[in-house]
Amino acid sequence: MAEYIFGVDVGGTSVKMGIFDVEGAVVDKWEIPTRTENGGENILPDIAESINRQMEKEQYAKEKIAGIGIAVPGPVNEDGIVNKAVNLGWGVTPVKEIMEKLCGVPVQVGNDANVAALGEMWKGGGQGYTSLVLVTLGTGIGGGVIVDGRLVTGADGAGGEIGHMHVMDGEEESCNCGCKGCLEQYGSATGIVRLAEKVLNRTQEPSVLRGTKVTAKAVFDAVKSGDKTAITIAEEFGEILGKGFAMIASVLNPAAFVVGGGVSRAGEILFEYIRPAFERYVFPGAKNAKFVLATLGNDAGIYGSAKLVLDKMV
Amino acid sequence: MAEYIFGVDVGGTSVKMGIFDVEGAVVDKWEIPTRTENGGENILPDIAESINRQMEKEQYAKEKIAGIGIAVPGPVNEDGIVNKAVNLGWGVTPVKEIMEKLCGVPVQVGNDANVAALGEMWKGGGQGYTSLVLVTLGTGIGGGVIVDGRLVTGADGAGGEIGHMHVMDGEEESCNCGCKGCLEQYGSATGIVRLAEKVLNRTQEPSVLRGTKVTAKAVFDAVKSGDKTAITIAEEFGEILGKGFAMIASVLNPAAFVVGGGVSRAGEILFEYIRPAFERYVFPGAKNAKFVLATLGNDAGIYGSAKLVLDKMV
Repeated sequence: MAEYIFGVDVGGTSVKMGIFDVEGAVVDKWEIPTRTENGGENILPDIAESINRQMEKEQYAKEKIAGIGIAVPGPVNEDGIVNKAVNLGWGVTPVKEIMEKLCGVPVQVGNDANVAALGEMWKGGGQGYTSLVLVTLGTGIGGGVIVDGRLVTGADGAGGEIGHMHVMDGEEESCNCGCKGCLEQYGSATGIVRLAEKVLNRTQEPSVLRGTKVTAKAVFDAVKSGDKTAITIAEEFGEILGKGFAMIASVLNPAAFVVGGGVSRAGEILFEYIRPAFERYVFPGAKNAKFVLATLGNDAGIYGSAKLVLDKMV
Repeated sequence: MAEYIFGVDVGGTSVKMGIFDVEGAVVDKWEIPTRTENGGENILPDIAESINRQMEKEQYAKEKIAGIGIAVPGPVNEDGIVNKAVNLGWGVTPVKEIMEKLCGVPVQVGNDANVAALGEMWKGGGQGYTSLVLVTLGTGIGGGVIVDGRLVTGADGAGGEIGHMHVMDGEEESCNCGCKGCLEQYGSATGIVRLAEKVLNRTQEPSVLRGTKVTAKAVFDAVKSGDKTAITIAEEFGEILGKGFAMIASVLNPAAFVVGGGVSRAGEILFEYIRPAFERYVFPGAKNAKFVLATLGNDAGIYGSAKLVLDKMV
């Protein structure tokens, strides 16, 4: 009878790892560095060694382990093969096959942004919803779509790439993906800084943001203190995110949007700017979506990857 | 052992009905008028009477009927209750409950645009794909989203309302839904006529379209004959639809777009104008989506509603 699950989230600088019981309680949690040199050839052996050592230490028999879930920063197909993970130095990598050989227990693999959505649904801000979209406003914008409790991974593992929805015509700068006018260019942590600079350059209005290092948090702190320029920035940010959320809602009609990532540390005030624009753009039948904050922070990936394993057991 | 399924598609002027075997072969097919007077109170009794008469005529025992699938033009919740169907005169209507009482066999209910997607996947242009988006370019634009073989109905039955995705800033005219800049305002049969009139008014260029009743078919016939103005119209149409398809693909990464409805009678030439724009706007990892024509025409709804029943049997 399986009692424990390993959840692993492979990032560009560190690998987060956790042991969960089948109810989702954390038994232990730790990190190891990600060794990206030589095409990232050490990453999976390092993870396997750490897991195997932990199993010995805890004296877990293999039968007690339901499996290992692994979240990776790249598209993953249904056979657990990663097509490419630039941040890890990987080309095509059969993660499931390699890890099952190294650890001798079943392995499930998912894209990190998708898997985080599963984590937030299971134990985070999305609890109680079976149909939700996680929007991670970090350096870029990541996304994870869940319909009827199941991840939408997409035909080529590119499901939930909502940061690359086209939301703005006439943009002159290119997004990292090569297109112009992607949601990520306005709503991410770097996007809001770009927006802020444009607004600051456009007006002469005094603002506490002038001459400082602008961050998403600084903008929303200034909004709370009534800074007019900051409010203009927040309005433009909310307009574009609300429009993007509305596009998603017209396709999927999710019960909730769960918003995480660094920008979400600004808190519920984000929704005061996103929600009005959302309601202007959305198909009326889909306007009831709830907006909630993600709560698992950097642990969403280890929770979600554990849940990947649990879902395969059912 | 159940052998037959009834598929019903309730439209504003007629109700299409079919009997299918469990492999999806059509045993019989007929239509009855839709009596929308008095809040559409006769519609379901009329359908039930027609089905019951057919069962008697064919001497089907109730045990031989797997069920009745019904497609309706409105949002449907998971209990088979229609919230509102303007074209039928209906307010909140518990279709499943009423029909099960009237016919004595299990009933499944779905939104017509969604159900059509299921039909096209089962027996139409979408065969072989388990993850697809049906885009019906008719008077309006309907949509149906299928992920891993299952319909995405949405939290409030408004999944797949892709005609109401915002695709154009600065639009001054309102869509039927009340928003401005919806895909339906440009890509539907009426949308392309509107686009055509704008282009014809903007230039003095000679065109076979001048002084005629412009239709989608007329535009694409003129494109095939090399009419420059028609080509401009087709380019603007393709630009907007391609952009909309790209937005959907960035969220869902479907394996295929299946395009149906009156506008699709123009044929594969549509894709010559949609595909290039799609590729310019889409997230590169989702660009492999196939574009195919729907093949079931007005029968997509009866096929799909029969499939609704079949899916519940498994």
